[in-house]
Amino acid sequence: MKAGILGGGQLGRMLLQAAANYTVETWVMENDPNCPAAHLCHHFVQGDINDFDAVYAFGKGLDVLTIEIESVNVDALEKLESEGVKVYPKPSAIRTIKNKILQKQFYEANDIPTSAFVVTAHLRDLNNHTALLPAVHKIGQGGYDGKGVQIIRDEKDIDKGFDAPAVLEKMVPIHKEIAMIVAMNEKGETALYPPAEMVFDPVLNLLDYQLSPATLPEKVFWKAEAIALRVVKALNSPGLFAVELFVDKNEEVLVNETAPRVHNSGHHTIEANYSSQYDMLWRIMLGYPLGNTDAILPSAIVNLLGAEGHSGDAVYDNLDEVLKMDNVFVHLYGKKQTKPGRKMGHVTIMHKDYQDLTHKANKIKHLLKVLGK
Amino acid sequence: MKAGILGGGQLGRMLLQAAANYTVETWVMENDPNCPAAHLCHHFVQGDINDFDAVYAFGKGLDVLTIEIESVNVDALEKLESEGVKVYPKPSAIRTIKNKILQKQFYEANDIPTSAFVVTAHLRDLNNHTALLPAVHKIGQGGYDGKGVQIIRDEKDIDKGFDAPAVLEKMVPIHKEIAMIVAMNEKGETALYPPAEMVFDPVLNLLDYQLSPATLPEKVFWKAEAIALRVVKALNSPGLFAVELFVDKNEEVLVNETAPRVHNSGHHTIEANYSSQYDMLWRIMLGYPLGNTDAILPSAIVNLLGAEGHSGDAVYDNLDEVLKMDNVFVHLYGKKQTKPGRKMGHVTIMHKDYQDLTHKANKIKHLLKVLGK
Repeated sequence: MKAGILGGGQLGRMLLQAAANYTVETWVMENDPNCPAAHLCHHFVQGDINDFDAVYAFGKGLDVLTIEIESVNVDALEKLESEGVKVYPKPSAIRTIKNKILQKQFYEANDIPTSAFVVTAHLRDLNNHTALLPAVHKIGQGGYDGKGVQIIRDEKDIDKGFDAPAVLEKMVPIHKEIAMIVAMNEKGETALYPPAEMVFDPVLNLLDYQLSPATLPEKVFWKAEAIALRVVKALNSPGLFAVELFVDKNEEVLVNETAPRVHNSGHHTIEANYSSQYDMLWRIMLGYPLGNTDAILPSAIVNLLGAEGHSGDAVYDNLDEVLKMDNVFVHLYGKKQTKPGRKMGHVTIMHKDYQDLTHKANKIKHLLKVLGK
Repeated sequence: MKAGILGGGQLGRMLLQAAANYTVETWVMENDPNCPAAHLCHHFVQGDINDFDAVYAFGKGLDVLTIEIESVNVDALEKLESEGVKVYPKPSAIRTIKNKILQKQFYEANDIPTSAFVVTAHLRDLNNHTALLPAVHKIGQGGYDGKGVQIIRDEKDIDKGFDAPAVLEKMVPIHKEIAMIVAMNEKGETALYPPAEMVFDPVLNLLDYQLSPATLPEKVFWKAEAIALRVVKALNSPGLFAVELFVDKNEEVLVNETAPRVHNSGHHTIEANYSSQYDMLWRIMLGYPLGNTDAILPSAIVNLLGAEGHSGDAVYDNLDEVLKMDNVFVHLYGKKQTKPGRKMGHVTIMHKDYQDLTHKANKIKHLLKVLGK
């Protein structure tokens, strides 16, 4: 089986670590030949994953293609799909999700609970929707990792919005933020991972700290599971999906966003679940049975981001202190250069007691720093 | 850090899967460019690991070197070591171990319990040692995976022995066969994995089925631990070692053989221990603290060997049935061609109950076959 990945970042890297448990022959396309995944595939192709011709040529001889970032040329993927290449997730699902306006309209059209929103074409349109404030303004195309997202608290913030097609989403009084990872195979069979519970860093808007399985009232858990399944069934695509959900103060569950790929919120599944999200996506691509999503033990993830004020060659301060901890798994993504907020690695903690997870997560957050030299 | 591996088989493959958790830049040397590890390193060098010039040139620019098979050019490694390249395990340890005569003499010289033996230079010498029978005749150099080992039950078997320098070892009335994996770092600090318990296939003499942690009387456990530590301290080398031990009917513990590298008996540590044997060797090579050898859950390993009477392109019969099992991890080594007895993969089973491990191990052994087409 010949399988290709569009994008060569850390998600591709971890996908390829998992691929080596099977007999699949792997291809990666990415502009940067020193990207985290480049050396872990059978065939690295330097190229622009947003370019039609490059993506089409890359995928033409392959059996199955996947993505590790939504920013890819979907037209090329649709042509490849029409010519018999399996593309998981389906190009139609990527097209819906990669544009935040279409994504939001998709939830509405499928009766999937999500926060109130309006579509804005220009910055000035925000003045017509002050009743929706406080709200989050998200650019339709091209946002990623906290870029293209702006909080508009009141009228004074309006000039921080985007003067481009965007969606303005009413802010939800968030009680908890959770992520559900859902797998769907070719036959439409699904498997759900236990929900993960997150805290976001208010400054960088990147995943900060995560516990899994989330501690949720049973009612909330069932709602979250039902909604996440509904998203994936409505997308109608085989693949691995991360559905990010808000739980509000009234225990209502709303979809925030969906990623049609392996996701930061599923890193812990490498050690803490029987079939990791990476293993699961290979099972789907290779036509194997779905894996077991059960947790082996509860776990936490600490993301390792480039420290503020530091750029240059990455140095991992206090790494030894963290490597000495008994129940901790360090993942460094092999990026030579750090910059503020760049995802440089993550640390997974496993323990039967949540207290140990919380304690160690905080300790690691304060200890381990990615500095530049 | 630039790290090289001599040999590109499945052990190299799993080492490289683990390497991608760190920032190390990896090199592999091996004759076969399609070997299991070739595509998972930064730099693959086609070459003969038994050739002095090839090994020397390969290692010259690197910071640290390791092996995934003992059959390497030790002279080149010694020269590299003398020029400042870290070689873990030390060439002196490889030299002692790769020759089964020297290995046995090493145990004797260091008061390490091992079965009675004599060194034989020619086949005819066996006639002088019939008092030692039944015994095992092992060729001094070049034996591997059951090759170069011959059981001599009585005088009628003598012509099955080796007409080359070899060692004749008195057969031990084996009650149990166990393996202890021991890590030692540059500072001489050590870490031991829980012992694993094995059953060998009487025909192929390859590891057949393994449980870990072994169920041993405390006295036997302490003896095994002490002996394994003594072996590694006497070898006086940083690295990762597998010490194979016999426990006889009287609960005496004897060393059978030692491997100065990651080992088949430690595959389960990938999922079932906090720091796997592969992770541990990287920690040692990169100068990181030793990892935690504790078991997360008990586990079993089933080796996946090429079926008798089958050669050619590998087909994994009943793979789907095994992938459906809830607590099972499949590892295929990506070897295109199978032949009888070839190591094609392994399956790890994890469960708190040994009964589940035993039941599933037997089921998998009977179900999953590597056929040729």
